[in-house]
Amino acid sequence: MPKIVDHDKQRRIVAEAALRVIRKSGLEHATVRRIAEEAGLSVGSMRHYFSTQEELFSFCMGLFVERVEERLENLKWEGPLVNDLKCMLLQFLPMDQERTLEMEVWFSFSAKTLIYPELKKLSNNMQDGMHKASQFVLDKLVANKLAKPGLDIDLETEKLYALIDGLAIHGILQRDRLMPDRIESIVEQHLRTLYFDVNQNK
Amino acid sequence: MPKIVDHDKQRRIVAEAALRVIRKSGLEHATVRRIAEEAGLSVGSMRHYFSTQEELFSFCMGLFVERVEERLENLKWEGPLVNDLKCMLLQFLPMDQERTLEMEVWFSFSAKTLIYPELKKLSNNMQDGMHKASQFVLDKLVANKLAKPGLDIDLETEKLYALIDGLAIHGILQRDRLMPDRIESIVEQHLRTLYFDVNQNK
Repeated sequence: MPKIVDHDKQRRIVAEAALRVIRKSGLEHATVRRIAEEAGLSVGSMRHYFSTQEELFSFCMGLFVERVEERLENLKWEGPLVNDLKCMLLQFLPMDQERTLEMEVWFSFSAKTLIYPELKKLSNNMQDGMHKASQFVLDKLVANKLAKPGLDIDLETEKLYALIDGLAIHGILQRDRLMPDRIESIVEQHLRTLYFDVNQNK
Repeated sequence: MPKIVDHDKQRRIVAEAALRVIRKSGLEHATVRRIAEEAGLSVGSMRHYFSTQEELFSFCMGLFVERVEERLENLKWEGPLVNDLKCMLLQFLPMDQERTLEMEVWFSFSAKTLIYPELKKLSNNMQDGMHKASQFVLDKLVANKLAKPGLDIDLETEKLYALIDGLAIHGILQRDRLMPDRIESIVEQHLRTLYFDVNQNK
């Protein structure tokens, strides 16, 4: 009986191995040979799953986007809104080991896009996701008539996006100083500056 | 007559060449050979100036810090304070070609510190500078009794620091979208949220 290999499952195994290699040794050392070794596959079999390195990296970035989307889908929108929005934004921040690993690799990819423009589109998905999340926060506040009067929505969207990314980077590069609970307080405080709380604003 | 070579000047020439190579080809391709070529020197003479690659990179980061410090020293503090503080923060942002190049290389270094912890201390100087600038902004507002009542100074320092770094990164990675004038508006608007303006707050 021939061995039945789940092609998509194997691609995921290879991608997960690639992510571990990238995390450990950096993107430029993530060679086919090393990834095959990490995945427990032969170098020859690798090309069944990915024909180019770019295809593999693209798949890896896709995995991240998928994971973030999965976390977003699993969020319970139980209110109050400001709390739900905070939980959503925290999905893009290094709050636990899984998210930290994702962001570290994403950061390596981002630095590379300066030199290899062909990688640029790979990182755009994640960036788009973060930008959309910021947009979503502002839109939601406006739609619920909860945005502070006089807010410049476009500017606040851009600002929130930069703040989240800045916190993400400090959270991974300076994790001894910027702990997850501190990140959470800053996000919460920032949302409160956007939020028109009837009880607070007499 | 023996050729008199200004050692420090030559070190600078080598470092400037290194920065151009890093920007063009990435940190991992900044080999002694390529840097020598870019600087118009022989490979053999390179070791007169830097005995290890780490020493060279360290010197490069030192150059950045020096340049930022030089720009900070040349700032004219003419008031109003909120404007002066904005000008100071903009020294850390990709507002022109020079600052963009600095930040691109700094970003490459930062991504590398995840994998090569020995590089970590090299990037700390610049990070410290940014963090101190944020601290300075908040301290200055407090000292001049211009900070909005009820501000959490530590949290606002951390938040401003993350915002500036986030804007810096978006300014270099997404420069078509986030233009210098947009960056400036966001910094200005953010300062106004911290600033207790007697004329605005009746």
